[in-house]
Amino acid sequence: MTGRVVVAGLGPGAEALVTPEVRAALAEATDVIGYIPYVARVADRPGLVKHASDNRVELDRARHALELAEQGRRVVVVSSGDPGVFAMASALFEAVEAGPRAWRDLRIEVLPGITAMLAAAARAGAPLGHDFCAINLSDNLKPWALIEKRLRLAVEADFAMALYNPRSKARPEGFVRALDLLREACKDARPVIFARAVSTPEESLRVVPLPECRPEMADMRTVVLVGSSQTRVIARTGAPYVFTPRSA
Amino acid sequence: MTGRVVVAGLGPGAEALVTPEVRAALAEATDVIGYIPYVARVADRPGLVKHASDNRVELDRARHALELAEQGRRVVVVSSGDPGVFAMASALFEAVEAGPRAWRDLRIEVLPGITAMLAAAARAGAPLGHDFCAINLSDNLKPWALIEKRLRLAVEADFAMALYNPRSKARPEGFVRALDLLREACKDARPVIFARAVSTPEESLRVVPLPECRPEMADMRTVVLVGSSQTRVIARTGAPYVFTPRSA
Repeated sequence: MTGRVVVAGLGPGAEALVTPEVRAALAEATDVIGYIPYVARVADRPGLVKHASDNRVELDRARHALELAEQGRRVVVVSSGDPGVFAMASALFEAVEAGPRAWRDLRIEVLPGITAMLAAAARAGAPLGHDFCAINLSDNLKPWALIEKRLRLAVEADFAMALYNPRSKARPEGFVRALDLLREACKDARPVIFARAVSTPEESLRVVPLPECRPEMADMRTVVLVGSSQTRVIARTGAPYVFTPRSA
Repeated sequence: MTGRVVVAGLGPGAEALVTPEVRAALAEATDVIGYIPYVARVADRPGLVKHASDNRVELDRARHALELAEQGRRVVVVSSGDPGVFAMASALFEAVEAGPRAWRDLRIEVLPGITAMLAAAARAGAPLGHDFCAINLSDNLKPWALIEKRLRLAVEADFAMALYNPRSKARPEGFVRALDLLREACKDARPVIFARAVSTPEESLRVVPLPECRPEMADMRTVVLVGSSQTRVIARTGAPYVFTPRSA
């Protein structure tokens, strides 16, 4: 039997958002590898070895997965959301590119999942209903100046935006600066959605006009959706609907 | 029994990519509404009424769904991919906003799905592995000049890009102009992925350097992924992997 690596997206949290394709890959795995809380989402069973590791060791984890596959194991690398969006798929291919030639001929498959911005948008209405962009606010691996440049150009393009990793304990100041930049560049009261842990028991959703946004409204489990200039709010009994019209 | 509208994403085509949440909503529906080929994906059963309509009647379809819900029906509006990404969710909220006040108090829920760009990216590797944008190339509802402006700014921001609806029979010239613009603005040979009907029996995937892209490589069922300046190709036996590194 030849080994393989599957990089699978577990979706935002709820079991009802895990695709049958991912479920089947997990059922066939000999090894599951990933960040501690994601590996914890996979049920134990005889014959399954779980390898949980801390955050920020993505390349080590990718190499470990490839080594196990070389030994003939059926490895599933788990990501939350979609593995291709600010998650493990890129790290895996970085490791393949830098690794031994034999790794290129391993069977590697990426299985998509429901990424955080789509789960959050669905809960709010349709805020990403027209052209939009997704920006990772973490400056672990890129200069902060590049993030600011992208935010400014995204406002100029009038994209709706999904901001991933808005705020970590280690770098709380980045999101403060991002909000200042957005307020100054947008000059309006477009709706911003703070969506935390969507589809889990800790879910919360908050719609706030841009001028009233405060950095503490986001944490590590929050994705922030910023409307375009055309994004509208429908007031109603209960939580408002937020949507970006198709003509925006 | 009170009516409700669920806007559900069926994913790109394969049954293995339909979430259990969407499957459950379809099992409880009294009515399914949508574009003909999407409604055809839902199995017939006693008690289920299917309302299939042609393309480009999104607002009529949305109003029909809301009227049926007002009458107490459990309506599922089906989209392919994710309903919030260039699909039915925005049209539904446009109809709610313009409609009678009572529609705001109906129970409306959006259920996310695997959108085409994520399914396509997964097949190719991780081309959307860093900051990216999604642009609808259809100028049915917005001026072409706005599309060109967004493409130029997206290149300046060095986003990877997902281009939806690249080419229709009615407007073949738009994609010709988009490719010309991208070649001129990018000035490099970054990889472009033409992903057609991913996860269906008609799936095809083609990786082409930007200077060699031709308009005929896309049709209505294709999503086009354009790399950033940092996107790389890993040559191997078999189809190459394409990925955008996390530091891009």
